[in-house]
Amino acid sequence: MKIIIIGASGTLGKKITAFLEPDHEIIKVGSKSGNINTDINSPAAIEAMYKQAGPFDAVISATGSGHFGPLKTMTDADFRKGIDSKLLGQINLVLIGQHYIRPKGSFTLTTGILTEEPQPLFANLSAVNGAIEAFVRAAAIELENGIRINVVSPNVVEDSPSFFPYFPGHIPVSMDRVVNAYVKSVLGAQTGQVIKVH
Amino acid sequence: MKIIIIGASGTLGKKITAFLEPDHEIIKVGSKSGNINTDINSPAAIEAMYKQAGPFDAVISATGSGHFGPLKTMTDADFRKGIDSKLLGQINLVLIGQHYIRPKGSFTLTTGILTEEPQPLFANLSAVNGAIEAFVRAAAIELENGIRINVVSPNVVEDSPSFFPYFPGHIPVSMDRVVNAYVKSVLGAQTGQVIKVH
Repeated sequence: MKIIIIGASGTLGKKITAFLEPDHEIIKVGSKSGNINTDINSPAAIEAMYKQAGPFDAVISATGSGHFGPLKTMTDADFRKGIDSKLLGQINLVLIGQHYIRPKGSFTLTTGILTEEPQPLFANLSAVNGAIEAFVRAAAIELENGIRINVVSPNVVEDSPSFFPYFPGHIPVSMDRVVNAYVKSVLGAQTGQVIKVH
Repeated sequence: MKIIIIGASGTLGKKITAFLEPDHEIIKVGSKSGNINTDINSPAAIEAMYKQAGPFDAVISATGSGHFGPLKTMTDADFRKGIDSKLLGQINLVLIGQHYIRPKGSFTLTTGILTEEPQPLFANLSAVNGAIEAFVRAAAIELENGIRINVVSPNVVEDSPSFFPYFPGHIPVSMDRVVNAYVKSVLGAQTGQVIKVH
């Protein structure tokens, strides 16, 4: 299977890549590293990336950022950070990628537990995650040629201790469980699912 | 109670206004009608509206639109229609309004059943709804001075028969039930809730 991994050099992307690389052809994509560079904030850059990659069977998106800060001082410009990056970046990977992916291919996006369990300072990312999860349910019923779409929603991961203080009482999940959620989406047969690793 | 109703001349806004008007001071806001005009796509216009309205106790948002059309041909520009209107419009009503609302006031936004039960051609609105619902849960834990926030999620409403064909098998809900969901949010004490009228 030929799999494009967006954010392949990140904490999560590295582990997903390491797991899948022995058995699959992996195209590593990053903003500055990997086989191909792209900027997910730009639809034109996403399209150029797909053209360079050639036909593929799966996209895993483990990328995208948002605004971190108090609601009290949040502005429209702050809120648009998550919209332009983690939200529209991932959605454009699907809207554009649907024209380049092989039949029976799959898209796997990334959200997080903040959709359902908000924490102070993360309102922008909660909203972005909620949008992506609802989009995945909606896109699953319209994608053609057997193309599937799912999203992995991890809790705070054991490899990211800097986030622990923001998630009191949460038991960090193992990277092994999170990586396997992506594997479940790509090699399994489900579609329209939020695969929770909470 | 002084209540600002955004979209007061719409199908839903008219009925909410009629229900609350006998007992409350209602400020009707619309893009072209009402006591005050505003454009929810513009943060500056929202701020001007709040300044003109003066201190208030509640905001009900029954407004916002999105893109309607097939996923297959959807573009970034299409997707941004719902982002700029129904999503950021409603979120900016809260981000800006939190600085003008009285203590113990409330915000009540509007989504719809598409968050959980997608229909073909509505992927943009599914995503927008999912974002707003997650934002409401997140904002509820950060708003200060006893300020509350909820969102009403109606199914297709009996007063909008043009939508019936897009929701096969859905039993249209009565406008009376939907109006009461807004009343529950404004006059009740809950916060961070998705009030479903499905």
